[in-house]
Amino acid sequence: MIIKTLKWVGGVDGYLEIIDQRKLPGEYKTLRCSNVKQLYDAIKTLAVRGAPAIGVAGAYGAVLSLRSVSGNKSLKQAITVLKRDCEYLASSRPTAVNPRWAIDRVVKCAENRGARLRCASPRQAGTLDELRKVVLKEANDICREDVKMCRKIGTNGARFIKNGAGVLTHCNAGALATAGQGTALSVLYEAKKRGKKFRVFVDETPPLLQGARLTAWELKRAKIDTTVICDNMAAALMRAGKIDMVITGADRIASNGDAANKTGTYGLSVLAKAHHIPFYIAAPSSTFDLKTKTGKDIPIEQRSADEVRLWHGLPARGNTASPQDALRRMAVLQIVPDGVNIYNPAFDVTPAENITAIITERGVIEKPNAHKIAKHLA
Amino acid sequence: MIIKTLKWVGGVDGYLEIIDQRKLPGEYKTLRCSNVKQLYDAIKTLAVRGAPAIGVAGAYGAVLSLRSVSGNKSLKQAITVLKRDCEYLASSRPTAVNPRWAIDRVVKCAENRGARLRCASPRQAGTLDELRKVVLKEANDICREDVKMCRKIGTNGARFIKNGAGVLTHCNAGALATAGQGTALSVLYEAKKRGKKFRVFVDETPPLLQGARLTAWELKRAKIDTTVICDNMAAALMRAGKIDMVITGADRIASNGDAANKTGTYGLSVLAKAHHIPFYIAAPSSTFDLKTKTGKDIPIEQRSADEVRLWHGLPARGNTASPQDALRRMAVLQIVPDGVNIYNPAFDVTPAENITAIITERGVIEKPNAHKIAKHLA
Repeated sequence: MIIKTLKWVGGVDGYLEIIDQRKLPGEYKTLRCSNVKQLYDAIKTLAVRGAPAIGVAGAYGAVLSLRSVSGNKSLKQAITVLKRDCEYLASSRPTAVNPRWAIDRVVKCAENRGARLRCASPRQAGTLDELRKVVLKEANDICREDVKMCRKIGTNGARFIKNGAGVLTHCNAGALATAGQGTALSVLYEAKKRGKKFRVFVDETPPLLQGARLTAWELKRAKIDTTVICDNMAAALMRAGKIDMVITGADRIASNGDAANKTGTYGLSVLAKAHHIPFYIAAPSSTFDLKTKTGKDIPIEQRSADEVRLWHGLPARGNTASPQDALRRMAVLQIVPDGVNIYNPAFDVTPAENITAIITERGVIEKPNAHKIAKHLA
Repeated sequence: MIIKTLKWVGGVDGYLEIIDQRKLPGEYKTLRCSNVKQLYDAIKTLAVRGAPAIGVAGAYGAVLSLRSVSGNKSLKQAITVLKRDCEYLASSRPTAVNPRWAIDRVVKCAENRGARLRCASPRQAGTLDELRKVVLKEANDICREDVKMCRKIGTNGARFIKNGAGVLTHCNAGALATAGQGTALSVLYEAKKRGKKFRVFVDETPPLLQGARLTAWELKRAKIDTTVICDNMAAALMRAGKIDMVITGADRIASNGDAANKTGTYGLSVLAKAHHIPFYIAAPSSTFDLKTKTGKDIPIEQRSADEVRLWHGLPARGNTASPQDALRRMAVLQIVPDGVNIYNPAFDVTPAENITAIITERGVIEKPNAHKIAKHLA
């Protein structure tokens, strides 16, 4: 099972190829991003999503930015363009901190190298080309590190999956959300490798149904016993004793351990607590933002009402109601009547006290708090 | 604003006209049920739904049953057909108790009158016709009483809606769920009549989205400030102090106050409790089933996986992607990949200890328990 959510194709003049997640599970198609605008749109419209994945995408965005700089520009000018483009890319999704982290890292690397290149080489074209290579190498490094981090999160978390357990997950924190094998789902993949038997319940996760569409698709490919539920069924399953643990990813974790993740995660954490069920978060350490003191300081992205009002998708297979359906055209259905208000925050914040442990590539932080987190990241 | 969810048209040879709720809000169409099979299918496929509404529908089903009995049958034979048909209708949705209550009432009335008719009149055809009239009258009575009960529930509950309150409701417990102005929504309608200002948050309520599709449609018609949310956003709204109370309907309330309602209600009750928010249930007294001791004894209807796997709906207005969409054909979209398990219980049970009060047409039962309920119904 190899899912290549992001793939850089070619050298410094190459492009980023991503799986278009808006079309899954109906259609498996890749999308080519050859410039910054295309990548911004792909991130904004969730063709690629998941905090670690959009971090890696942001890093490659820097390569696309420099691709657009013509050879007669100075290094200083090139870096100005790069920084502007990177700010633009980082603004696409304000809650996740990983894009900011990846972009800062690439920009810093470009600035360092740029400074050295300006001293060393008088030939402008040559040095710009070298800057591009350096930035591509940094983006490739970030991508490769993400793959390793994912695996390490999985090995660090696998022990929490008990044999015979019922595991509930929300949204998609899998291969489709990273460059590697995921965060929360990596824990499941590594547990399976160790021969553990368990059953996964997947919240469908409206409005965009990343659980039903993406996580179910991934887990099925991995031959893991998977049952999709509506999010509103989780509580009754907990009460019935079918859920032994909850595990999700995170988009940003504040210095005190408060964690922003897909809307609905907070509610799950409250329900888990009420039913005495452990609640885990799995995320790379780049998800921590020590500059964000508590959950209250995390900006929550509000998304378009149309994500709730309308549902976009491909007509179902075997739906022979009309010959048009056989073409599997993208259709748009209306769910909420026109003229009704809609509230659509993409994320909510789970307070640290509801989190049993945070699993990162560095290890496990049980009962997270500011002190333990600072120590973990030191 | 008059929504006629159910309407009997004509005399004993008439038919039941219902609003086809499967098509709302995209399309407002009525459906004619002229025989028991058509009505069974309409209930089973949720063209008509809501415990009180399917109670009234069941009563009219008895009229449709007798309509199918030819004039040369004896009264005894007619009542045998009636009972068989009523059992069949009652089996369509096992969780709600109101259909059973309404059907039992009509059958009992038919049996009583049948016994008397058999003594009084030697002319078979005449007495069968009279039986039909009696049954139609009983069904009309049940329907009229439902209208009154709805209004009374509203007047009994209106005081719980505080001025400026944020009210959360789940699924549809409105006019579309009854023959009158609803149960939980009737409380809102009566509060509005009394000049109260409040804001209603409506859970979209997957898998069939009765909140987004039906409640939003109803409340918009009533000019009530309405905001649709995904169910998984309710907890964060509670934490943010936007929700001052939760109110839902019920499909069956056990003798101890445990209440079955649309899947997701139990989770809401746990979240409300954790956030110190009162949780109300509004239902006619016919929703109590004293033969059901506790929530554990309530049968929970499991519905088709396709309700979660696929989304049925009408293409959105203004979607000019293709000329076919302009026709607003019913389309079916696939949400969950083939081969993935789905769990789809239609209801869950909220334990009495999570319920602040139950509002009926008779009054209010605060902190419900077996003793108070028995007293309330005596």
